[in-house]
Amino acid sequence: MAATEDSLAVVGGGLVGSLCACLLGNRGFQVDLYESRDDIREQEHVTGRSINLALSVRGRAALALVGLEEEVIQRHAIPMHGRLIHNTDGTRKPIPYGRKGQSIFSVGRRFLNEVLLSACESNPNVRLHFRHKLQSADLDEAQLSFRGPDGQELKVQHRAVFGCDGAYSAVRRQMLRRPMFNYSQTYIPHGYLELCIPPTADGQFAMEVNYLHIWPRGQFMLIALPNQDRTYTATLFMPFAVFDSLTDRDKLLTFFDRYFPDAVPLIGKDHLVKSFFAVDASPMVMIKCNPYNVSDKSLILGDAAHAMVPFYGQGMNAGFEDCSVLSELMDVHGHNLSAIFSEFTELRNKDVEAICDLALYNYVEMRDLVNSTSFLVRKKFDLFLNWIAPSFWIPLYTTVTFSRIRYHECVKNRAWQDKVLSRLMNGALISMAVAGVAGAFQYLQPHRHLLKIPFDNIRPLAWLSR
Amino acid sequence: MAATEDSLAVVGGGLVGSLCACLLGNRGFQVDLYESRDDIREQEHVTGRSINLALSVRGRAALALVGLEEEVIQRHAIPMHGRLIHNTDGTRKPIPYGRKGQSIFSVGRRFLNEVLLSACESNPNVRLHFRHKLQSADLDEAQLSFRGPDGQELKVQHRAVFGCDGAYSAVRRQMLRRPMFNYSQTYIPHGYLELCIPPTADGQFAMEVNYLHIWPRGQFMLIALPNQDRTYTATLFMPFAVFDSLTDRDKLLTFFDRYFPDAVPLIGKDHLVKSFFAVDASPMVMIKCNPYNVSDKSLILGDAAHAMVPFYGQGMNAGFEDCSVLSELMDVHGHNLSAIFSEFTELRNKDVEAICDLALYNYVEMRDLVNSTSFLVRKKFDLFLNWIAPSFWIPLYTTVTFSRIRYHECVKNRAWQDKVLSRLMNGALISMAVAGVAGAFQYLQPHRHLLKIPFDNIRPLAWLSR
Repeated sequence: MAATEDSLAVVGGGLVGSLCACLLGNRGFQVDLYESRDDIREQEHVTGRSINLALSVRGRAALALVGLEEEVIQRHAIPMHGRLIHNTDGTRKPIPYGRKGQSIFSVGRRFLNEVLLSACESNPNVRLHFRHKLQSADLDEAQLSFRGPDGQELKVQHRAVFGCDGAYSAVRRQMLRRPMFNYSQTYIPHGYLELCIPPTADGQFAMEVNYLHIWPRGQFMLIALPNQDRTYTATLFMPFAVFDSLTDRDKLLTFFDRYFPDAVPLIGKDHLVKSFFAVDASPMVMIKCNPYNVSDKSLILGDAAHAMVPFYGQGMNAGFEDCSVLSELMDVHGHNLSAIFSEFTELRNKDVEAICDLALYNYVEMRDLVNSTSFLVRKKFDLFLNWIAPSFWIPLYTTVTFSRIRYHECVKNRAWQDKVLSRLMNGALISMAVAGVAGAFQYLQPHRHLLKIPFDNIRPLAWLSR
Repeated sequence: MAATEDSLAVVGGGLVGSLCACLLGNRGFQVDLYESRDDIREQEHVTGRSINLALSVRGRAALALVGLEEEVIQRHAIPMHGRLIHNTDGTRKPIPYGRKGQSIFSVGRRFLNEVLLSACESNPNVRLHFRHKLQSADLDEAQLSFRGPDGQELKVQHRAVFGCDGAYSAVRRQMLRRPMFNYSQTYIPHGYLELCIPPTADGQFAMEVNYLHIWPRGQFMLIALPNQDRTYTATLFMPFAVFDSLTDRDKLLTFFDRYFPDAVPLIGKDHLVKSFFAVDASPMVMIKCNPYNVSDKSLILGDAAHAMVPFYGQGMNAGFEDCSVLSELMDVHGHNLSAIFSEFTELRNKDVEAICDLALYNYVEMRDLVNSTSFLVRKKFDLFLNWIAPSFWIPLYTTVTFSRIRYHECVKNRAWQDKVLSRLMNGALISMAVAGVAGAFQYLQPHRHLLKIPFDNIRPLAWLSR
């Protein structure tokens, strides 16, 4: 068994794993990072999960901890100031994300992962091990067994294991068999499929660049985020049953012409048909669990601990914030992993479950409500109140996307706002009713003999004006 | 690979597995039953899960399908007509389960399992394979790999696989890795520990025999069910934190003297101390999933598909009813497993999830409400209405325990009753208010000059009597 007892193992070299390894290295820990795939920096084409990434404040704050925020934002990200809604009649309508200057940023997963892996590599405390696939783990003892690049089994012993190996985490699979480990995986009936919108003939972006484009159609939805190479990655979300019903070119084009007419020329008919039938739609899953640690020997982070559907743009941001929280707990507890791990579960569980639920709810809102009047009225009302009282009234989307207010407190804040609004509405109704009655009294007073009611003793307006 | 392609594999030879194998054998299928443990009929002492079993109508109906109901009920079961509540002051109070003649039956798990295994053995279509532990499975192809009694790997190919291997099902673990398989496991913060109440010195039952004895204490609960050998199996339910706090003999006895004073002499102090510290408390888990089948090649049943906490006494009954439902679907679809399996998931999911939720709710009710006045008043009210209108008003406990009304319809029926009661209550309040106002009018009418209100035109009682 390889003698690495003093070092920490990070399993998974994706976004959260590589950021986590970097942070732990900066904190003075020796870190071994194990990734099952090849080094993506050396590959021409990378398979695997995509869905464009929308980097916002939580993710940026975590990148800042390892000194990478500026590089990512300044050099490689495209700001998106709002949603741009595409209607079936060809009209487009912008809905800003927040106040002026508040933007989210479209970044490529591969680029971000490469930046983070390079940061790991230049950190003297971090060693990278690619093509190491986890075979089994004893999480009580932090013993791991990998199949290495030569196909041989490699057993290692670490001080602790950080499972950052994504929604289908092998580390979590070991936790699942332990008593008192609560777990749920919930698939939604919709799948997704990626398409590409190329640049125009003269090499320009094919649509307004600083937006997240949305074609909301109730049960279906198409979105598109801009890339650095002036393409857009478009993602089609639909029930699997609808994917399955589009069995040939004609059916597909008829469907697109009906629901996404302005997207067809942008994607190109032939490209659309080829891309659509080249791959199957992918499923989307929400994963919740509790706890995230096994004593002081292992901890899961990111999608391994809380995969969510992609509709709030918070999956990566929440995973990166896990790293920030870990770092903040190290400020308090130093290298005392026992205290850090148990407090991490305690602190983080209600926040990540809140954002998982919000993402699931936004799945309905994006498809449906974005296009409804009540949604737009509330959005404008929220932004207006936020404009006149910026620290008193903060819309839900703003707290989630442009602050580090704890997710569960964002939800509580929204519940409080709903209550205030509902009381204001009731108050307005009561005032109108009282005013109506008072008016009637005033009108009727001269004719009181008709009703024989002692109006003289009733002074509603006097009462109102007290 | 063993050529058993025409036969069905049942994985798990516990209660549901052995009943399922029997039923399938009776239906003309060739069946191979694989059980990881030894044949319990040949063992002196059996380890593993216990918690006494309370057999009720659903379980009995399934046993009747294989001709075993009478044997089990007449020869081996002890009827329990109600709960007997033990208060801390030593008083006892019976609460009947239903109307006269409606009883649930205490049966031993081991005995019932032995009866079912013997029935399998005498069925010419069923072959039993003990000490066969499932190692891996390809559920799309119904290929299974076992470690056999000689330690060798055995690969088999079947027409389909029935996973009846309990709450920690190895068959379900394979399903868990498939896309679109929804799953949750939820542990409650309470554990359980079994104790024994021996017969009296003259060989009699130490308490009233035809009851399920309950010591409800809010956060704790002790229950006891009678056994054929005149012992009681008592089960203590408490938060793990409380189990952990009772670290020595003195603390344990002080705790029992305070909360379960009349149980201490029945169990015996030394026996209590010895049993309590001999084993750790066991966890309790609720498991839900969907679907239960992988095409027409595999299906999970019983605890493998829907483990529940034991507080409604329906775990085994629901598992047995799965077998009844399977049998009923075979009445309709013959040997068409594809139709049977997909309809099983469709039909059964909302029923078993309803009983899982009810069992979790009863966890609170048994510890707490059984002792409360509102619970007792509602219970009496329900039984009274049921007595005067037996087919119109059936209490929830009665529909669940003494009928085969689908579980989700039991819950709907209860919701309807709650609504009726709440309207009746509101109706009564409104009637009282109207009567009060009308009375006031009648009283005031002679003195109407004091108020100058034209009473002559207001005839509330006339309106009421229309």
